[in-house]
Amino acid sequence: MVGGIFILFDIFREIDNCVTAPQGFRAGTTACGIKSAGTIPDLAILASDVPCVASGTFTTSSTRAAPVLVCQERLNSGIAQAVIVNSGNANCATGDVGLLNAYHMTELVAEKLHLENELVLCSSTGIIGRQLPMEKIEAGVAAIELGRDKGNAFAEAIMTTDTHPKRIALEFQIDGRTVRLGGVTKGAGMIYPNMATMLSYLTTDAAMAYDWMKAEVKAAVDDSFNMISMDGDMSTNDTCILFANGLAGNTPIDERHPDADMFRQALRYVTQYLAREMARDGEGATKLMIVQVSGARNKVDAVKAARAITLSPLWQCALAGGDPNWGRIAAALGASGCELNQSTYDIFIGNVQVMKKGQAAEYDQGAARQAMAGSEVTVAIDLHLGNGKATAWGCDLTHGYIDENTLYTR
Amino acid sequence: MVGGIFILFDIFREIDNCVTAPQGFRAGTTACGIKSAGTIPDLAILASDVPCVASGTFTTSSTRAAPVLVCQERLNSGIAQAVIVNSGNANCATGDVGLLNAYHMTELVAEKLHLENELVLCSSTGIIGRQLPMEKIEAGVAAIELGRDKGNAFAEAIMTTDTHPKRIALEFQIDGRTVRLGGVTKGAGMIYPNMATMLSYLTTDAAMAYDWMKAEVKAAVDDSFNMISMDGDMSTNDTCILFANGLAGNTPIDERHPDADMFRQALRYVTQYLAREMARDGEGATKLMIVQVSGARNKVDAVKAARAITLSPLWQCALAGGDPNWGRIAAALGASGCELNQSTYDIFIGNVQVMKKGQAAEYDQGAARQAMAGSEVTVAIDLHLGNGKATAWGCDLTHGYIDENTLYTR
Repeated sequence: MVGGIFILFDIFREIDNCVTAPQGFRAGTTACGIKSAGTIPDLAILASDVPCVASGTFTTSSTRAAPVLVCQERLNSGIAQAVIVNSGNANCATGDVGLLNAYHMTELVAEKLHLENELVLCSSTGIIGRQLPMEKIEAGVAAIELGRDKGNAFAEAIMTTDTHPKRIALEFQIDGRTVRLGGVTKGAGMIYPNMATMLSYLTTDAAMAYDWMKAEVKAAVDDSFNMISMDGDMSTNDTCILFANGLAGNTPIDERHPDADMFRQALRYVTQYLAREMARDGEGATKLMIVQVSGARNKVDAVKAARAITLSPLWQCALAGGDPNWGRIAAALGASGCELNQSTYDIFIGNVQVMKKGQAAEYDQGAARQAMAGSEVTVAIDLHLGNGKATAWGCDLTHGYIDENTLYTR
Repeated sequence: MVGGIFILFDIFREIDNCVTAPQGFRAGTTACGIKSAGTIPDLAILASDVPCVASGTFTTSSTRAAPVLVCQERLNSGIAQAVIVNSGNANCATGDVGLLNAYHMTELVAEKLHLENELVLCSSTGIIGRQLPMEKIEAGVAAIELGRDKGNAFAEAIMTTDTHPKRIALEFQIDGRTVRLGGVTKGAGMIYPNMATMLSYLTTDAAMAYDWMKAEVKAAVDDSFNMISMDGDMSTNDTCILFANGLAGNTPIDERHPDADMFRQALRYVTQYLAREMARDGEGATKLMIVQVSGARNKVDAVKAARAITLSPLWQCALAGGDPNWGRIAAALGASGCELNQSTYDIFIGNVQVMKKGQAAEYDQGAARQAMAGSEVTVAIDLHLGNGKATAWGCDLTHGYIDENTLYTR
């Protein structure tokens, strides 16, 4: 596995139903007419039977949307039980009315499910600057029927320009008890993830200590979603929340728990899987780009370098054309701000070394083209300066991206 | 005029021949076969009859090319007399051999023109990672004939994927003497200028003090070329050099010279004109985007905000489609890192106010589409927080960009 993850298949078992795979989680969806005439699912609820320890990471944008403000406020308590999500409208740049609408969405769910209002979160994704059609949402909440087998439907309802849902669930053992971790995500405009909205929800029936969970969620997001979408540059609505309802009955996990690393590895696997699938499904994308940087002076430098390659439109175009134009990799690397010695760094495309000690390597052009030909292309860079490592994911830049984004509001 | 420039046409007069318009400058070009079979001009020399006070700004990339290293070393003296430029090959990532080749290019010119070797500079632009074909360059230098009317030919010879040359010259008065300032530039991949190579050469027959000139060149580049291409993110070869040979006979300009502001305004006009034309000629571009930010807390914030809009591929796609999807402007603004109050900022597209105090304004959709319809679209943002102002230039993102960059090395 890329990115320092290894999964032992006899330890982690992949199962169905993603966010409703863990005990005690239910989901439901409806097509309430936000997106269109009401034929495409655009409203969804995910809820736990009991209150959860919960922690999230959010966009740092200065124009963050009303639902993000509500989540941030409510997650200060470290407890949540449900989330309502709509697609088709971002409830962003909507002022006080938008904020009241976000609160109102949570009230509708609280009433329906007989929950404390403060335990309900909300997210929105879609067009910016329009008020939510609250009557449709009211009718939609009333119409939604929650079920334990509706995790996959939930994954579909939160999509915008995604071509397919991204979902996963793992089953493994903690304290000798079976626990489950599920996740879904949606991403759009993922060629430039920093301008896209990412919504991701993770659920588990494992019990865990809040402080430990909060730190682990942040670290996992940094090595996954933030490697396709950086903090300072996120969209107005980016959200990732983990709900842990504890129904598996294990001793709550903290840093001293003997199985802490087991859960950590599962969380890394789930978040990196979802991040990679988002990159693969970038708007118009035909190829997944995996950039592995090693030998950086430190991790910060490795992250800069890896991200810079995925964000180079010139290299993304070369990738689309299957053209091993590694000069564009070198240019993006040089501009990344990472420390670099022009006479030490190596670049590989797949298994083909195209640069050696900062200059053109002697390589077979046919082999290099072959390494660019598949649906997944790996670029590996060794800076030979230290032990810093990072992996970033991206995709190619094609006509499809232009087509999808040229006329979005019409 | 945009960007705080105003030009008084009875003070500045536009004239022909760009870099050879000022007294004592000559240029010459040839097609020596670097780019193709030898039919497209790809080698050029620009020289002054006498040594010049000279200052330049260069890419800060960690993978900067050999000719950039040569220029930086030689301009420490503050004196130069000629520059040789090739297109088709960037002489970057070429190691010690590349550096020797860069020096050798300057030697060929020094011998030809009987100059001190240290007074000759060099630039290269094109494919990365290939050694220069030095035999072709030797033959090319021998073949070049310099002339006073060859400024326009020089502008053409340095192009790569530019669709037309960018050149300008102004005539004005300093100390009651007629002085001239000429400029050329080439830019490629200008949709993402931070990954493109910009080469710009400015010439003047005005006399000036080195320290004053150095500061003015930097300030002018910051408000022009760097507003389409930022420092930390430039290409491997970016270069802008001003040569001042003093043949106009004026008292050397410094900060106390009564006409210092006259030259400053001319320099601003020339550099902003060239920067704007580079943006307009972005690969595949059909529209020039002008982003004017005012009311920022300070200039740094204004620059961040203006640049962020020009660099948003989602907004660039909307621009291509003539779609006034201002939510994408708001999202890019929020992610820019500039200080922002969500309830105070206004956004205009052309003359149509689309956002008022951070929310959708009431506007006529037809008028907004009309404002997006022309070949130049202005986005104006007032943050209502302070006096910081900046203007940035960009272009739309189209199929043409993809086409030009998908297969470049073949």
